[in-house]
Amino acid sequence: MTTTLPPVPSGAPSDSAAFAAHSAGPIAANESSGPPAESHLHVDDAHHIDVKGLTKILDGRWAEMRAWGRQISADPAFARPMDVSKEEHRAMTLERLKELAKRNWSAQMLPESLGGDNDPGGNLAAFEELVAADPSLQIKAGVQFGLFASAILHLGTEEHHRKWLAKTMSLELPGIYAMTEIGHGSDVSAVGTTALYDADTEEFIIHTPFRAATKDYLGNAALHGHAAVVFAQLISKGVNHGVHCFFVPIRENGEVLPGISIEDDGQKGGLNGIDNGRIAFDHVRVPRTNLLNRYGDVAPDGTYTSPIASPGRRFFTMLTTLVQGRVSLSGAAINAAELALGIAITYGSQRRQFADFTGINEVVLLDYQLHQRRLFPLLARTYAAAFAQENLLHAFHEVFSGENDTDENREDLETLAAALKPNSTWLALDAIQTSREACGGAGYMAENRLVGLHDDLDIYATFEGDNHILLQLVGKRLLGEYANSLKGMDAGDVTKFITSRAETISARHTPWRRLLQSASDLGSVRRTAASLRDPDLQLELISTRAESMVEELSLNLRQAPNMPKEKAAALVNSHQVELIETAKAHIDVILLTAFNEGLAKVEDEATRAVLVRLRDLFALTTIERELSWYLMNGHLSLGRARTLSDYIARLLTKIRPHALDLVAAFGYTQEHWRAPISSGLERERQVQAAEYYRHHRASNNAPIDEKVLYKRNLETKKRMK
Amino acid sequence: MTTTLPPVPSGAPSDSAAFAAHSAGPIAANESSGPPAESHLHVDDAHHIDVKGLTKILDGRWAEMRAWGRQISADPAFARPMDVSKEEHRAMTLERLKELAKRNWSAQMLPESLGGDNDPGGNLAAFEELVAADPSLQIKAGVQFGLFASAILHLGTEEHHRKWLAKTMSLELPGIYAMTEIGHGSDVSAVGTTALYDADTEEFIIHTPFRAATKDYLGNAALHGHAAVVFAQLISKGVNHGVHCFFVPIRENGEVLPGISIEDDGQKGGLNGIDNGRIAFDHVRVPRTNLLNRYGDVAPDGTYTSPIASPGRRFFTMLTTLVQGRVSLSGAAINAAELALGIAITYGSQRRQFADFTGINEVVLLDYQLHQRRLFPLLARTYAAAFAQENLLHAFHEVFSGENDTDENREDLETLAAALKPNSTWLALDAIQTSREACGGAGYMAENRLVGLHDDLDIYATFEGDNHILLQLVGKRLLGEYANSLKGMDAGDVTKFITSRAETISARHTPWRRLLQSASDLGSVRRTAASLRDPDLQLELISTRAESMVEELSLNLRQAPNMPKEKAAALVNSHQVELIETAKAHIDVILLTAFNEGLAKVEDEATRAVLVRLRDLFALTTIERELSWYLMNGHLSLGRARTLSDYIARLLTKIRPHALDLVAAFGYTQEHWRAPISSGLERERQVQAAEYYRHHRASNNAPIDEKVLYKRNLETKKRMK
Repeated sequence: MTTTLPPVPSGAPSDSAAFAAHSAGPIAANESSGPPAESHLHVDDAHHIDVKGLTKILDGRWAEMRAWGRQISADPAFARPMDVSKEEHRAMTLERLKELAKRNWSAQMLPESLGGDNDPGGNLAAFEELVAADPSLQIKAGVQFGLFASAILHLGTEEHHRKWLAKTMSLELPGIYAMTEIGHGSDVSAVGTTALYDADTEEFIIHTPFRAATKDYLGNAALHGHAAVVFAQLISKGVNHGVHCFFVPIRENGEVLPGISIEDDGQKGGLNGIDNGRIAFDHVRVPRTNLLNRYGDVAPDGTYTSPIASPGRRFFTMLTTLVQGRVSLSGAAINAAELALGIAITYGSQRRQFADFTGINEVVLLDYQLHQRRLFPLLARTYAAAFAQENLLHAFHEVFSGENDTDENREDLETLAAALKPNSTWLALDAIQTSREACGGAGYMAENRLVGLHDDLDIYATFEGDNHILLQLVGKRLLGEYANSLKGMDAGDVTKFITSRAETISARHTPWRRLLQSASDLGSVRRTAASLRDPDLQLELISTRAESMVEELSLNLRQAPNMPKEKAAALVNSHQVELIETAKAHIDVILLTAFNEGLAKVEDEATRAVLVRLRDLFALTTIERELSWYLMNGHLSLGRARTLSDYIARLLTKIRPHALDLVAAFGYTQEHWRAPISSGLERERQVQAAEYYRHHRASNNAPIDEKVLYKRNLETKKRMK
Repeated sequence: MTTTLPPVPSGAPSDSAAFAAHSAGPIAANESSGPPAESHLHVDDAHHIDVKGLTKILDGRWAEMRAWGRQISADPAFARPMDVSKEEHRAMTLERLKELAKRNWSAQMLPESLGGDNDPGGNLAAFEELVAADPSLQIKAGVQFGLFASAILHLGTEEHHRKWLAKTMSLELPGIYAMTEIGHGSDVSAVGTTALYDADTEEFIIHTPFRAATKDYLGNAALHGHAAVVFAQLISKGVNHGVHCFFVPIRENGEVLPGISIEDDGQKGGLNGIDNGRIAFDHVRVPRTNLLNRYGDVAPDGTYTSPIASPGRRFFTMLTTLVQGRVSLSGAAINAAELALGIAITYGSQRRQFADFTGINEVVLLDYQLHQRRLFPLLARTYAAAFAQENLLHAFHEVFSGENDTDENREDLETLAAALKPNSTWLALDAIQTSREACGGAGYMAENRLVGLHDDLDIYATFEGDNHILLQLVGKRLLGEYANSLKGMDAGDVTKFITSRAETISARHTPWRRLLQSASDLGSVRRTAASLRDPDLQLELISTRAESMVEELSLNLRQAPNMPKEKAAALVNSHQVELIETAKAHIDVILLTAFNEGLAKVEDEATRAVLVRLRDLFALTTIERELSWYLMNGHLSLGRARTLSDYIARLLTKIRPHALDLVAAFGYTQEHWRAPISSGLERERQVQAAEYYRHHRASNNAPIDEKVLYKRNLETKKRMK
């Protein structure tokens, strides 16, 4: 039997293999048997992270609600199924949602007067965790509570609350949020559905006038929804008062009501536990009182009134309720990134491939520089995003709990959510895809979670505000603020100011001045590297870029208001990419600031030291990504720029020993990952294989490697010459 | 009835909306009714593309085989199903493969002596097209013909061909390619499976000695395979001769044979039409003659012989057969990118969102600068990749048809395939994901193809050689060539040479010299922009970067051979990211060169002019991606670098009018796209909606927009003051 034993892995260069066949050095199994499966490399580092303390900081104000959410998402009863039909998945998801409702899910969002806790922040914190159970369950909950119930709560008034809220929260009344149309997703104000008031019967007539006005992509529409909140153009007495929201019954006793046509959206890229569909209305009549009338009402005779005189401002106020979706999807996406990185980094710390310098052990994937470079910058950005998300949740809570509900806070909340939702959702897709590839073929198996996370999270970049559209909003807000900052000045001052800024910027475009300046910046690599670790310099670089870009864009667009409409539109369009880049530059500032704030909360010295390196990695890879901008605008000397990649490489090796702790601090366990590859199975297999080869080396009748004989032969021939 | 008509879309600023309500300007419907649905913007361009001529050039030498492949992939009978269980999909895919076999699919790969056409290039050209039918069908065909049959053909000898090839080609004998193990994917030489020769019975004993040595991810393993070609360590007379390939029966009459254990890999991220699984062997005996013995044989008494003395070279020769997979998957991935961009660009040319400057028409997505910037650089890179793929196919054909099968050509083919497969597969994932997002919610519907393409193509980045592992091979080859180029010199010369190169490079690190030089480079923006269009300058920049990186990396690693093994390994590892970047820089050179060669074949002047712009876009976005490198190394002046983004912006608007022609030239039609959103449906809906609003504006009893009243009111109040 022993003669069947194969030789040690022969992937190493032949001389190492020869060495291996005759050596009895330490073997991989011993190194990797104790959890966590850290490599023996890089353990010269004295810092050890206080994982629990770090989790507490990451969990923030609503740690208890998060814990509740995580407890539910660890329960196999709510786990995303594999290999089921969409029909089964849909039915299962409805049942699971009912089970959540029994546990008073989302009751925290209601004000105390309606039997809730008035804890909108806590409600979202728990909701964000549902993504770890099954994103379909999360989004179905989001449709029911975050959209349907919230529309009734925020756009409706007392009678609506009384009639429908309790039934909605208990899931006796599964609902549909009918805003998007085939023809209009991002441009909500342009929806085609009409709600014409008929004073004779005191009814609204809900109607879909053409195919593109059909409501689409609506969760609960294909099967489960009993009623919908429908966004339509309110027309009364010959005037169109813009988009308003109406409560419209859709099904009764399982039957679709007359005048309503339903189509099933069918199979999607993911989230197949949700029955998305289309709804068209053919002159469907609802009572006048089904108008959710908080921001606009119609009297029996058809007279329209609103507490908000400006139709534009009224429309945007009604849309503010959408911000809840953006805030919570941003948080959910970060959690998805945390799950993916947790799986990939854990697997990477156990999986071995290709012999190391001894020719005996194989190298742990995470010890490869490339593997670190693929995963750690994403880990750093995920930390930054998590800290920023906590701030966003605070901002949301302040407004929605009424703690501090001012117009200014609402506007800031809108902007912050519009900035962070794109960042978080793209980060998630990037982290998931990188993790999938970093896990190789194993990453492609559905049981290892990553492909399912990609499928489900993909659409997070589009729904509740397409990422690029949101970034445009952010960019426009930045331009507006810049313009406001000039408002105190009179016309002459503004002209002078603009001219002087234009000169400054144009000076930046000329490399001479700045470059000669930056020459004095050159010193030893060590000195310049050290200064890039200076958090003030990092923040100055990243925020200067954001500010300069707003300024430059404003200057580029300054003629637009004086131009004919067509030319102005063309000018603005020709700077659209800049506008988006400007918004993204602003997001980097938000993230770095949040990371620094988060860091300030860490008291444990050793943990702090590791997080400082992670922050440095975030800041420096962010600067590196835009390095050409810093060079072109003279903010970094060429000499200093050259030190950046070496410095990043050193950070990677310093973060390496703490990688498992850093993902553990996210608070997810095996129960959340549910991925066999990161369960320890891989380590067991490695131990078993290493034991096998150890026995084999120890035996005396193992086959010898032909390579050894071949080499010996060559040497003999050489000697004979 | 007419009073139910809603107003024009009110997404425009309120003053435009007012204008819209009273204007009777031209409407979108008129603009968009004629195919192709081009915008009225940017049609001042005189060039018109000769689409057919361009397709001919893209299709290259094997145009007929491509046409055959495209005809099959347009047939609904082979279309990727939606919303079926993996069981149904697997059964369906097997039946479809049998249907292909009836049509003599892949017979072209066989030499004339075995009844084929000896047209390996043509065979792959057709195979690459199958991705448009269903990637599961493609990969199942790849397993059967490209791997299983090819192993018998290339690693076996006459008797094997006689016994198994015909049955394999007819699918009477569905086969499994059992190379990868749970524990070893990329490091094939280290597989744990053993094949011990027993001279008493003249049999090999195939055995899986530990769990990690279980064969995994094998297509046809879970259900359909009757036999496998198994890669195992060949041991005879106490010597391990390394990895060889054995023909091992797996199932007979539907029953798994004794000693063989099968596990199903279950649901995967995609390619669920293939029954991937695991196989473990418990001392399974096969006749001596089941060794595929072209490169190594065992005599009845156990004596091993091989035509290739070096075990290392023998191993790599046996692996050469893998190159076919890399070549063809690269081509398939490019085709997938072409499909995705075809769908997204067509939809983008019909879909409208947000009112334009008139307040009446909505803007076609593809007229937004951002939309162009998201899609066109990918379109340009796809053209570059397609031209490069044709060269790769030629290189493959030369070697595999025997036309010009030299060691050098084999090595070049290996390197080129290792370079292009990662590029093409990542390009596909990027193009598919960008297209998905660019199509918004519609892009997430399975019926619109994009999500399915992502699911299936995802693993193309991993199988047949993980992309990063392949890039490492490319990087190492580049280092080797650089070392070879020094070989003519004696030791002293090399030292002198290295020192002088080191000085040159270190001079580049000091910004002074180059910068003062580049100052003379500064001129008017127009002049510098024009010179960036110079194809020689583009190629010089891109190839200089590739060369400098090899040089710099060589210098960084030059001490490694003199170091102790552990330190040498650490040094090499600390430059792994550079090694990968060096390989990628080399790929850019390959692509640009291929684009220029492709361009040289275009005779039609107008087509040429458009393709020149597309080539410029490819070259300039490639340079822009690495702009900081060019700046840090003094290859571009800051002034010239500043002109880059404006120049790219202008190229986008110039390519815009030809975007539909450029995707049409890929040769795919509606039958291949099979995506309702790009079928013209969207345009019909837009026309219908526009007609509705036109009637509405023409009628006299349409409701007036409250915004208009509100504005009028404000003005009245102002006048009253």
